[in-house]
Amino acid sequence: MPKLRLFTPGPAMVPEEVMLAMAYPIDHHRTADFRAMLEEVTKNLQYLMGTEGTCLTVTGSGTAAAEAAIVSCLPPGHKALVCRAGKFGERWGKICDAFGIANTKCELDWGHGFKAEHVAKELDRDADIDTVIVTHSETSTAAVSDVRAIAELTRSRDILLIVDGITAVGAIPVKMDEWGIDVLITGSQKALMLPPGLGFVGVNDRAWKRVDSGEMPSFYNNLKAYRKSIGSFDTPYTPANVMIRGAQVVLHRIKEEGVESIWKRTASYARATREAAPALGMKVFAADPVDSVTALTVPDGVDEPKLRKIMRAKHGMQIAGGQDHVKGKIIRIGHMGYMDQFDALAVIAALELTLIELVHRVEPGAALTAAQRVFAE
Amino acid sequence: MPKLRLFTPGPAMVPEEVMLAMAYPIDHHRTADFRAMLEEVTKNLQYLMGTEGTCLTVTGSGTAAAEAAIVSCLPPGHKALVCRAGKFGERWGKICDAFGIANTKCELDWGHGFKAEHVAKELDRDADIDTVIVTHSETSTAAVSDVRAIAELTRSRDILLIVDGITAVGAIPVKMDEWGIDVLITGSQKALMLPPGLGFVGVNDRAWKRVDSGEMPSFYNNLKAYRKSIGSFDTPYTPANVMIRGAQVVLHRIKEEGVESIWKRTASYARATREAAPALGMKVFAADPVDSVTALTVPDGVDEPKLRKIMRAKHGMQIAGGQDHVKGKIIRIGHMGYMDQFDALAVIAALELTLIELVHRVEPGAALTAAQRVFAE
Repeated sequence: MPKLRLFTPGPAMVPEEVMLAMAYPIDHHRTADFRAMLEEVTKNLQYLMGTEGTCLTVTGSGTAAAEAAIVSCLPPGHKALVCRAGKFGERWGKICDAFGIANTKCELDWGHGFKAEHVAKELDRDADIDTVIVTHSETSTAAVSDVRAIAELTRSRDILLIVDGITAVGAIPVKMDEWGIDVLITGSQKALMLPPGLGFVGVNDRAWKRVDSGEMPSFYNNLKAYRKSIGSFDTPYTPANVMIRGAQVVLHRIKEEGVESIWKRTASYARATREAAPALGMKVFAADPVDSVTALTVPDGVDEPKLRKIMRAKHGMQIAGGQDHVKGKIIRIGHMGYMDQFDALAVIAALELTLIELVHRVEPGAALTAAQRVFAE
Repeated sequence: MPKLRLFTPGPAMVPEEVMLAMAYPIDHHRTADFRAMLEEVTKNLQYLMGTEGTCLTVTGSGTAAAEAAIVSCLPPGHKALVCRAGKFGERWGKICDAFGIANTKCELDWGHGFKAEHVAKELDRDADIDTVIVTHSETSTAAVSDVRAIAELTRSRDILLIVDGITAVGAIPVKMDEWGIDVLITGSQKALMLPPGLGFVGVNDRAWKRVDSGEMPSFYNNLKAYRKSIGSFDTPYTPANVMIRGAQVVLHRIKEEGVESIWKRTASYARATREAAPALGMKVFAADPVDSVTALTVPDGVDEPKLRKIMRAKHGMQIAGGQDHVKGKIIRIGHMGYMDQFDALAVIAALELTLIELVHRVEPGAALTAAQRVFAE
């Protein structure tokens, strides 16, 4: 049985100490111990997101956090511009539609990231838009949007900005208060180095004003209920308290290293992977590549499912394929989680061997060398 | 530091083997391994709930599962009768209200359980009611409703029955198909001996017909999305896969022992606790006591928060207090989770010592003896 290495863009690898902390004897959540734990987690989330706003911990997938943000911030009378250039941007639009929230699309081809001018054009066209929803790192295409510039724009026009930071927060620079992001969401199973099961939502005062301006049909994913509880570091419903213990350990670890150092490391793994691509006969799929995950095009004649099967069965490495119309055409390699540069080299080494096995012309060591040059700098 | 024993009516104690299984190296969820795991979990949930219907695993608290059941089964045009005699019955009503679902109450004093005649009276009064929501075991009052008789009634009148089985499933007899329950929900942190973070929903064909009859504003907690995925033992959004690994281990364990045996054991712990009450100067709070959790009235002159504080700090035992208007008046002791008769005796022993310390007249060993007589039978 090969040693398992998880390179999917979430779930990402989790430090053993975190898994073991989660195996600590189970306790109740309406206790002083739990409240102290949630207080520390909340404060470290503020550090991670770069905000003095409210940070809420939701028991659920990242999608639960996304729904909570959308439903709470878009009561009747508001209209959202949903930036869509991949699977997750599309999901945000579907959530709006499911709740009957007025919304319009800003679309780009998959692999492209949104710039301020794309958003400005739509805002100019439709004066009813008062909310912009953008996915910072579109996990399905491995493309990055220029959230900093978009935030500058939305702030200057008094528009509310909701950012999906699911494969961004903790992996690439995201500065909620400094940039002017109003609502920022993320999930546990990415750069936070935790298993899936928690969502996190950062909310600033501007966003709270919006939340308080109306009411939407929601209960479980209602931010007001979470706000009411967080004052005493409590939760409205029974939380996944074991996961919150894990979050305490991992956020402590992130703070110790410093999030800027993690951003730098993550960027180096991404750059090494991009530099290795030509020697593998692969191309970087995204026109605007993000540093938390890399999508590489599968060379002509190479059977993508077979490639991933060999990677898993023979080399113990789980990577991701493409979704929807890029299924079979790209592979995706995550750079988040409990990972170092040697892991980044390992996945490139395994790709070399797998492509050679699939009779694709690859020079052993060439891709590895290109990657190693990045780390030697 | 005293040894920690968790006697709250959820979270309940978790076997060490389950916590350690959850510490297994993290893997991705779109894999054959995960699907095999979810398939086994799903089949064992069918066994546990006593149904050949669909069993769905939701990432979230029990409240997420409750919302999913209500919102999916009550599209516009339907009306629910919500049986409310405690905190959780009230929550179901609040969920209906939040989504604008037509509903009317059937109320009893806290501590009482619903009988078929209570429900029949309301159905006779209001012909628009086509759905009944009842909490099998009302955790806040430790009272049981006669779900078997209520199901017979709702089935005879072609009314949909949604049952909150959160502190019932796995602890006391619940037979979904045999009794005629249409939707049955439960949570991970009770008799399932898991940490909080997963909800489970059983849905029969009658309920699916209802679900398909309309549309409600919902996305994350939409049963249709879960149904679409479960055919291939998949989930619509990233699941708490580590918890599902725990569920695999624990459900295997439950099936090995046999759920009937667990029902019997749980009932014996409850009976022992009830028999011990008089010697502690306490009374069983519920007029219709359930076997999964016991609520005992705190004797006059005994400071309830102080009692719980000594129980925790000195004896390492976490029990629960009362909520809302019974706060300070009752304590609640759970009989669910990874527990045996010696644990049931331990909490009684600690109560004896605590009450003596609080200068309440208790004969050492008297309550213990009353409990032990139950186990000696």
